[in-house]
Amino acid sequence: MAFRFEIQTKDTSSQARLGKIETAHGSFTTPAFMPVGTQGTIKSLTPEELVEIGVEAILGNTYHLYLRPGYETIGRLGGLHKFIHWERPILTDSGGYQVFSLGSLRKISEEGVTFHSHLDGSLHFLTPEKVMEIQRNLGSDIAMVLDECVPYPSPYEYVKESTSLTTRWAKRCLQVRQESDPALFAIVQGGMYRDLREESAKDLVQMNFQGYAMGGLSVGEPKSIMLEIVDWTTQFLPENGPRYLMGVGTPEDILDAVMLGIDLFDCVLPTRNARNGTLFTSGGKVSIKQAQYADDGKPIDETCLCYTCRHYSRAYLRHLYLANEILSSRLNTIHNLFYYMNWMKSIQESIRENRLADFYRERRQQRDDLEIENPAQSRTLWG
Amino acid sequence: MAFRFEIQTKDTSSQARLGKIETAHGSFTTPAFMPVGTQGTIKSLTPEELVEIGVEAILGNTYHLYLRPGYETIGRLGGLHKFIHWERPILTDSGGYQVFSLGSLRKISEEGVTFHSHLDGSLHFLTPEKVMEIQRNLGSDIAMVLDECVPYPSPYEYVKESTSLTTRWAKRCLQVRQESDPALFAIVQGGMYRDLREESAKDLVQMNFQGYAMGGLSVGEPKSIMLEIVDWTTQFLPENGPRYLMGVGTPEDILDAVMLGIDLFDCVLPTRNARNGTLFTSGGKVSIKQAQYADDGKPIDETCLCYTCRHYSRAYLRHLYLANEILSSRLNTIHNLFYYMNWMKSIQESIRENRLADFYRERRQQRDDLEIENPAQSRTLWG
Repeated sequence: MAFRFEIQTKDTSSQARLGKIETAHGSFTTPAFMPVGTQGTIKSLTPEELVEIGVEAILGNTYHLYLRPGYETIGRLGGLHKFIHWERPILTDSGGYQVFSLGSLRKISEEGVTFHSHLDGSLHFLTPEKVMEIQRNLGSDIAMVLDECVPYPSPYEYVKESTSLTTRWAKRCLQVRQESDPALFAIVQGGMYRDLREESAKDLVQMNFQGYAMGGLSVGEPKSIMLEIVDWTTQFLPENGPRYLMGVGTPEDILDAVMLGIDLFDCVLPTRNARNGTLFTSGGKVSIKQAQYADDGKPIDETCLCYTCRHYSRAYLRHLYLANEILSSRLNTIHNLFYYMNWMKSIQESIRENRLADFYRERRQQRDDLEIENPAQSRTLWG
Repeated sequence: MAFRFEIQTKDTSSQARLGKIETAHGSFTTPAFMPVGTQGTIKSLTPEELVEIGVEAILGNTYHLYLRPGYETIGRLGGLHKFIHWERPILTDSGGYQVFSLGSLRKISEEGVTFHSHLDGSLHFLTPEKVMEIQRNLGSDIAMVLDECVPYPSPYEYVKESTSLTTRWAKRCLQVRQESDPALFAIVQGGMYRDLREESAKDLVQMNFQGYAMGGLSVGEPKSIMLEIVDWTTQFLPENGPRYLMGVGTPEDILDAVMLGIDLFDCVLPTRNARNGTLFTSGGKVSIKQAQYADDGKPIDETCLCYTCRHYSRAYLRHLYLANEILSSRLNTIHNLFYYMNWMKSIQESIRENRLADFYRERRQQRDDLEIENPAQSRTLWG
């Protein structure tokens, strides 16, 4: 399938790159943030709204779609794009992360992973070959290999064995890859151990994938360790290939990782926070249910140009949230995703103009100013 | 406040009228169906979507808005239109129906009705004067008087006393009415008793309201009795005033009532059914969760031009419903409201062209054909 990654500009003060990924469903600019459409929908929004917000690519969860409605159904109906009415690029994960999150409900062997569905307890068996078949049916633009995501902390020996299994699985994915399949990204594992990350990256790069992800990060480890591992690992990845930090993160995590050379991100944070009434603003996070907003006629963020901020007051959003109205999730999700997309655009522009370090300093300063003003709020803004 | 009702055409084969209601927030064509925005939102939709669907006026529930976020809050924030970002006409009910639905949680006296909030059990007291004050703060275009909605069946003596209380309350509403208040509609009660309906209507008409509603119908009585009471009552209402049948109903109930001279309707049916996965189509009702739609790539209704039918398959809608996704409620609500608005437009056009009787016959024939084909489905289509 058509897939191309091109670096357009590099920031000279960091490892950041401005790039472009081309797929059969159009291109998108990197560094990119992909909202998560777990069950074939970015919760509460239509594709038209995502486009209006500025979303260029989304993530679909293979595990969820495999269980319901089933990849064969989606395949018969013309693939995931058609099924969910989204015409732009889709990256699908391999289901590995979700399966390993099931804990005692799953069992790993060399061959693959056996697990019980969280929906009905039914027994399933995922192999590297199977996740390739599933993603082929989904017809995504970028597919991920099956990997084992190890928890933090994990003993060295366990991580070592697990990482080498992930590498063997990656090879099996590659072996069954067909010409018309989605682009295939490998996943570097290795926990928080530098040598294992190095080995994992080197082994995978030798196999020549179309992109490389880092998995098993942002799983509970201190942020400094996460960034250290990202920094350490990127040196072993090809300069001219896309790098994807899976499941990350806060706006600030994303900026930090961009400066270490990461191109792709996904996270449920903006959408999940939205449904919980937590909103990202230029002045820090806002919990919309707070009584102080009961009579507040101002928008969530007076500097924001999203649909929600153009038409609705904090008082109304608070009311919708407390009344458990569906529109609450919609309006909050629009705002949070707009905030994220705007954040990515600022990062992209800063790289284009070779002033990412300035952007970073300005944002840290803003955080520090906020900390003086309101310590509790600033801690949630950065880190 | 600016309010005008004008009859443009009458259907010669029935009592149906094509009219126009003008308000400070624009005009709308009658017979009209108003979707119900209980808590300051037509559940799951934005105002822009309602406009696209063809909705011209909506209903707001005074009871719910009074309890949360509170009418004073809405008043301070510039009224209900501004609060919910809806610029077209709004009719607010008086809260009477909801309060009386509370059953043992409320107590009626000559002065008004005491009730416990369904949200937190707090004690409240609504009087005719109070509901006028609340609706003044909400700033709706059409307000309703406080009434007692009697259950079906109820003994004659009880209904007689209750109806006369409703009439005295209507008078008190009128007495505190201010020049800038919303247009005020009275509510004819009288249960299923012709003489009480006649008395109620005559007493209220003498007081000269801007419109007349019929309450206490569609509360469990046989449909034939409801239509008989509607037919009986309209003769006592002014020809040149708008007539509103509260809480009705199915598309077929609406058509029947239009032919008896009713101009306004509201009902939670299309929106509530949508959230329950029940969809109105040209071929009868569809329960989208059924297994037969699992792989069905067709839209809900191949003759429908709504956003949902233009872009999504039955299989996707079934998936969203079973996965309990918010988008399910949205797409289903768009479809059902579009069906209702289209139904009202067909009725309006038929009156304009003086062929409502033909339209009625065609629809009955369609129902009968469907009944031969699928008896279970047709019963849900008509009555």
